[in-house]
Amino acid sequence: MALAYDGAIQRLIDAFSALPGIGPKGAQRIAFHLLSAPEDEARALIDAISEVKQKVRFCDVCGNVCETSPCPVCMDPRRDHTVICVVEEPKDIMSIERTREYRGLYHVLGGAINPMANVGPADLNIPKLLDRLKTDEVKEVILALDPNIEGEATTTYLSRLLSPLGIRVTRLASGLPVGGDLEYADEVTLGRALEGRRDA
Amino acid sequence: MALAYDGAIQRLIDAFSALPGIGPKGAQRIAFHLLSAPEDEARALIDAISEVKQKVRFCDVCGNVCETSPCPVCMDPRRDHTVICVVEEPKDIMSIERTREYRGLYHVLGGAINPMANVGPADLNIPKLLDRLKTDEVKEVILALDPNIEGEATTTYLSRLLSPLGIRVTRLASGLPVGGDLEYADEVTLGRALEGRRDA
Ligand SMILES: [Zn+2]
Ligand SMILES: [Zn+2]
Repeated sequence: MALAYDGAIQRLIDAFSALPGIGPKGAQRIAFHLLSAPEDEARALIDAISEVKQKVRFCDVCGNVCETSPCPVCMDPRRDHTVICVVEEPKDIMSIERTREYRGLYHVLGGAINPMANVGPADLNIPKLLDRLKTDEVKEVILALDPNIEGEATTTYLSRLLSPLGIRVTRLASGLPVGGDLEYADEVTLGRALEGRRDA
Repeated sequence: MALAYDGAIQRLIDAFSALPGIGPKGAQRIAFHLLSAPEDEARALIDAISEVKQKVRFCDVCGNVCETSPCPVCMDPRRDHTVICVVEEPKDIMSIERTREYRGLYHVLGGAINPMANVGPADLNIPKLLDRLKTDEVKEVILALDPNIEGEATTTYLSRLLSPLGIRVTRLASGLPVGGDLEYADEVTLGRALEGRRDA
């Protein structure tokens, strides 16, 4: 017996190991779980992956993930179309929605400025943000980047870029634990940071 | 916008959350990763899951996972067919193979005695083990259960069951950290425990 599993099992372990946050031991545990799981459970997972790849796209307006573009947030007339909250990733939108403190629109940058990883302003979804600000409807842009070095750099960059436009540019209040991911902030902390936002 | 994601994304997050060792935040991270990943990566994962469900089965002799039954270990004439190492799960076989200290056969119980979880001897793959011992070829059974309460109970049970058969019954030497999973033991510790095995 070789020191790797039989073909199919090893390929499944490898496929799961390639996913973020799953190490070789975790991948092995999942592979054996699926192996013994009812056919239905494996089928549900396969269908869910394939459905997401088929149906889900990015909103042409804000960059959020959605099944129709523009996304439901951009199309919702009950939301405040004079405020845009700029975030790094689509998942950050869910974090902010959970605070129930915000009723405006969003804009997803697709990351943050990070010279170490060779990500500059040109790699982010900034031109579309500028297009959206050309309409006279938007009165405030809230910069809700992750409270870490890359988020700070991006906040500073956008603040300088947007301030000449005569639109109020704010950022989340400090109160967020520094060095972490916005995604992991609890609702109360994030809600308070949103409430106490200040000019950037 | 509701506080759950649009249909397909939420279904994918739910499907990953159902896997062992993946929490809601981890599942969300994986879902967004797959969403942005190249079509090929999602396809490879789908194919790997579906291939395992189609091809992989359990060996009729030892209970190991395999693509052909009997499995390659049971069929290998170079292995020592006079020794059977009894383990809880197929993944434990890989842990023992990695020590390169063992050249005998295996028998997978499919778990351990655990009254709290309502798992008794009748729920384990014990009758097939007894069948295998009826041939006069087997001279030693090594009990390599997890070094925890359930593994100890199972070792004691099997030791009493097998000792009247006139076959040598041994267990792994202590040296394994108590309270853990055999799966997480490093090769050296596990190899030493195998070397120093004693009568059960
Ligand atoms: Zn949108
Ligand atoms: Zn076998």
